Amino acid sequence: MFMKNCWYVAAWSHELKDNALVGRTLLNEKVLLYRGHDDNVVAIEDRCCHRGAPLSLGRLEGNCVRCMYHGLLFDGTGACIQIPGQERIPPNLKVKSYRVVDGGRLVWIWMGDPALADESTIPDFPYLKNPQWHGIPDYLHYDANYLLIADNLADLNHIAYVHPNTLGGSEKYAYESEQVPMERLHDGFRLTKWHMNTDLPPFVKKIERKVTKVDRWNTSQMKVPGYFFLESGFSPAGTGIREGNRDGVIEFRNFQAMTPETDGTTHFFWIYMHNQTKDIERTAHSLHDSILEGFYEDKVMIETQQKVLDADPSFTLKAIAADAPLSHLRWLIEKRIKEEAVTA
Amino acid sequence: MFMKNCWYVAAWSHELKDNALVGRTLLNEKVLLYRGHDDNVVAIEDRCCHRGAPLSLGRLEGNCVRCMYHGLLFDGTGACIQIPGQERIPPNLKVKSYRVVDGGRLVWIWMGDPALADESTIPDFPYLKNPQWHGIPDYLHYDANYLLIADNLADLNHIAYVHPNTLGGSEKYAYESEQVPMERLHDGFRLTKWHMNTDLPPFVKKIERKVTKVDRWNTSQMKVPGYFFLESGFSPAGTGIREGNRDGVIEFRNFQAMTPETDGTTHFFWIYMHNQTKDIERTAHSLHDSILEGFYEDKVMIETQQKVLDADPSFTLKAIAADAPLSHLRWLIEKRIKEEAVTA
Amino acid sequence: MFMKNCWYVAAWSHELKDNALVGRTLLNEKVLLYRGHDDNVVAIEDRCCHRGAPLSLGRLEGNCVRCMYHGLLFDGTGACIQIPGQERIPPNLKVKSYRVVDGGRLVWIWMGDPALADESTIPDFPYLKNPQWHGIPDYLHYDANYLLIADNLADLNHIAYVHPNTLGGSEKYAYESEQVPMERLHDGFRLTKWHMNTDLPPFVKKIERKVTKVDRWNTSQMKVPGYFFLESGFSPAGTGIREGNRDGVIEFRNFQAMTPETDGTTHFFWIYMHNQTKDIERTAHSLHDSILEGFYEDKVMIETQQKVLDADPSFTLKAIAADAPLSHLRWLIEKRIKEEAVTA
Repeated sequence: MFMKNCWYVAAWSHELKDNALVGRTLLNEKVLLYRGHDDNVVAIEDRCCHRGAPLSLGRLEGNCVRCMYHGLLFDGTGACIQIPGQERIPPNLKVKSYRVVDGGRLVWIWMGDPALADESTIPDFPYLKNPQWHGIPDYLHYDANYLLIADNLADLNHIAYVHPNTLGGSEKYAYESEQVPMERLHDGFRLTKWHMNTDLPPFVKKIERKVTKVDRWNTSQMKVPGYFFLESGFSPAGTGIREGNRDGVIEFRNFQAMTPETDGTTHFFWIYMHNQTKDIERTAHSLHDSILEGFYEDKVMIETQQKVLDADPSFTLKAIAADAPLSHLRWLIEKRIKEEAVTA
Repeated sequence: MFMKNCWYVAAWSHELKDNALVGRTLLNEKVLLYRGHDDNVVAIEDRCCHRGAPLSLGRLEGNCVRCMYHGLLFDGTGACIQIPGQERIPPNLKVKSYRVVDGGRLVWIWMGDPALADESTIPDFPYLKNPQWHGIPDYLHYDANYLLIADNLADLNHIAYVHPNTLGGSEKYAYESEQVPMERLHDGFRLTKWHMNTDLPPFVKKIERKVTKVDRWNTSQMKVPGYFFLESGFSPAGTGIREGNRDGVIEFRNFQAMTPETDGTTHFFWIYMHNQTKDIERTAHSLHDSILEGFYEDKVMIETQQKVLDADPSFTLKAIAADAPLSHLRWLIEKRIKEEAVTA
Repeated sequence: MFMKNCWYVAAWSHELKDNALVGRTLLNEKVLLYRGHDDNVVAIEDRCCHRGAPLSLGRLEGNCVRCMYHGLLFDGTGACIQIPGQERIPPNLKVKSYRVVDGGRLVWIWMGDPALADESTIPDFPYLKNPQWHGIPDYLHYDANYLLIADNLADLNHIAYVHPNTLGGSEKYAYESEQVPMERLHDGFRLTKWHMNTDLPPFVKKIERKVTKVDRWNTSQMKVPGYFFLESGFSPAGTGIREGNRDGVIEFRNFQAMTPETDGTTHFFWIYMHNQTKDIERTAHSLHDSILEGFYEDKVMIETQQKVLDADPSFTLKAIAADAPLSHLRWLIEKRIKEEAVTA
């Protein structure tokens, strides 16, 4: 069961270039994404209504796509507009189409009732379009339900144990960091953790060699169904960052979107950005590679966790205090799913 | 659900040589095929009645096969005739046996009630035994239900889209070719398509370099449950082939048999033959390799189609005019299955 | 359905060294095995009660193990004794623990009601601890239910057909060997087979070149749920071994334990021992390698058998006389399972 009346990330915009026909399962539905010659992005069912052949094995013709099994041609609304060797086209020969928005960097899709699609509710992460922030967009595929990835992000204490040599650093992060009370939002939460007078984590040491002890902060915001926005920074320890002194601050911005592929698999779109003015490309690559290394640590843990849970559906998880944010997020999602069921 | 009271191809006859014990699942049943030392072909259950070991892991002894787990010996009727270390053989120690006919090139098997087996109903494709026709018999395994392969063959328009660079040629085949009305048969259909004044398809260009424009015809006959016979030819364009002038004609004969392995997999036996008198071997190999290349194009499409259908059992296909032959074939098969249920 | 109120082999003791955290599924339950710094072996649930992460991906700390997802620390009783960043520990934060006995060479586990665990019922194979007997302990993983392996061992006639070139030798073993009537035990059976004046089997020929014709005996004892003890020997043919003359005797001792991993997979622990006083290491390696070669022959047969049985749950096996021991063993196991159900 997924929220459907909401926007999901379907693709990075740059994936839809060079006439690419991107077939991608989203929320258990087979979707074809492409950019027509008129530059508009189209999302239609990736399954020919005739014999079920994937249209992503087809051929882009202008703004249309031709099934390369028997040659049926479909336009961007999903209507069949040509059947080779047949004059009349039955009106029921059409495939499902989806509301889709090309947001410039990301392609957003509305998987629910198109009549309810409201572009003003597309999640906004302003740093994505800000030219002062630099990063390398990337994608991971997870053999796990998207909520397990959201859980992971909702409790940053895990960086002390999963990522000691990459994103975390000292295990003290789990003991000594000070968490500002969670700000409950109608569609998620905002959370800030401070860790004063700590070591630079390994991934920052690779790009910053002068400072060693820092005051570190992470402000994460999560939104239903699966968005994570992180603003993080490092200030030379004891120079008064909490009082407003920003001398020598290093900052990062991080966007992660989890789109369910199936009940047990997830598309994971991410970018980690810096705003340094020197070594822009080199720093972006270093951060990308470090974060990816950390993500692979998460992937092992989360995919194993999924297998453990799958093996025994009777197992019930037991909460600790740090689970409050993830519980809030899961509660919001369940509420939204129930509301959708009532509406439908 | 399969038709059972009919003949299926179990193997090419040449597979049963050198004492081979061929274990093959047919219609979800495990069957052992072998040629005894008396030269008769035997088909019995490939599962020892004692502990379930496959007899195909056994040893041929004369006309019998010994299970190489505990040494039980079975004759060609499926009866156990020896138990090492035990005098008396209980009469229930036997495995199922099947009616089987060695047709010379093909081994035919009757999977249903042996009392109803009628050898006169074995499908006949006379070119298979005609020494003037030359081809290389081969086999493909499909991860798809046999009906999806039959569908593919029942609408030759697919060669325009799936096989433009191998078996098809011009996409005009799907638009311009003239189809003679389907001849409905009690056990299948016959269909002829003419494509006048077209380019030689790539697979024929490899063996014929003089002619470029041709009049092309395909006469296909399909029989339940899964047989395809094709008579096809190419005449220099405009020389009057439809009026009977056969000067310069190039002709082929093609046999394909689909035998269900399981509900989702199929054994596919095929041969593509020519009757040229020069370069016999080279031409046969060229045709074999070209057709196989084309079959791999089909395989990708059909196996992907099977995955798409499996992923959503609620999906219903929508027919176009060209589906009349495949609909007729499926209707005949369903009728036969219902008749078998009534009889049983 | 497995017997639970009994001892199973969980591991070779030497597997739990160098701070190893061994995660192993036993009877469908995920178990973590380790040796604490106090040298005691611990068996607890390999699944953190918080979010289901495997504790075997964790870190040994003294006699405790720390989950390396969020840092919860568990002691050897399964109790959570530390939550990073949280003072109070809810009493329900614990994982299941198992009764476990470090038997010196083997680690034994009781998967049922701990209150019923009785160490005096641990199966005893005295040769395992006798320094005069030498062998190399090893492990195989089977994709088959443990009962199929037990069946295999319960009828040694299979060595004539499965192992003619390794453990068996002459096929006459299945015809000529003399079986002493099975001794039915309350927890298994004991069985002796004599084969007089036969060839040395291939695996013994590799270590003994002087004798060719021997009198061979195998005394096997099997115990529920899955234990096999074999005492076997070879005496120069006709020198009166059955009358007590032991001149020139070569003897072996063999221990095999089958512990269900899941319904369809098994842990198989084994050791094959000799008591020769020369070439001790070389002989042990030769025997290990020969037996392993034979076990791979069994593995192919048994895993294929499992696939055949899985493919058709309606198939029923038919017994022969040699099945009496395996039938007795299966009957005992079913009786015990029923008794456990009544008790619980």
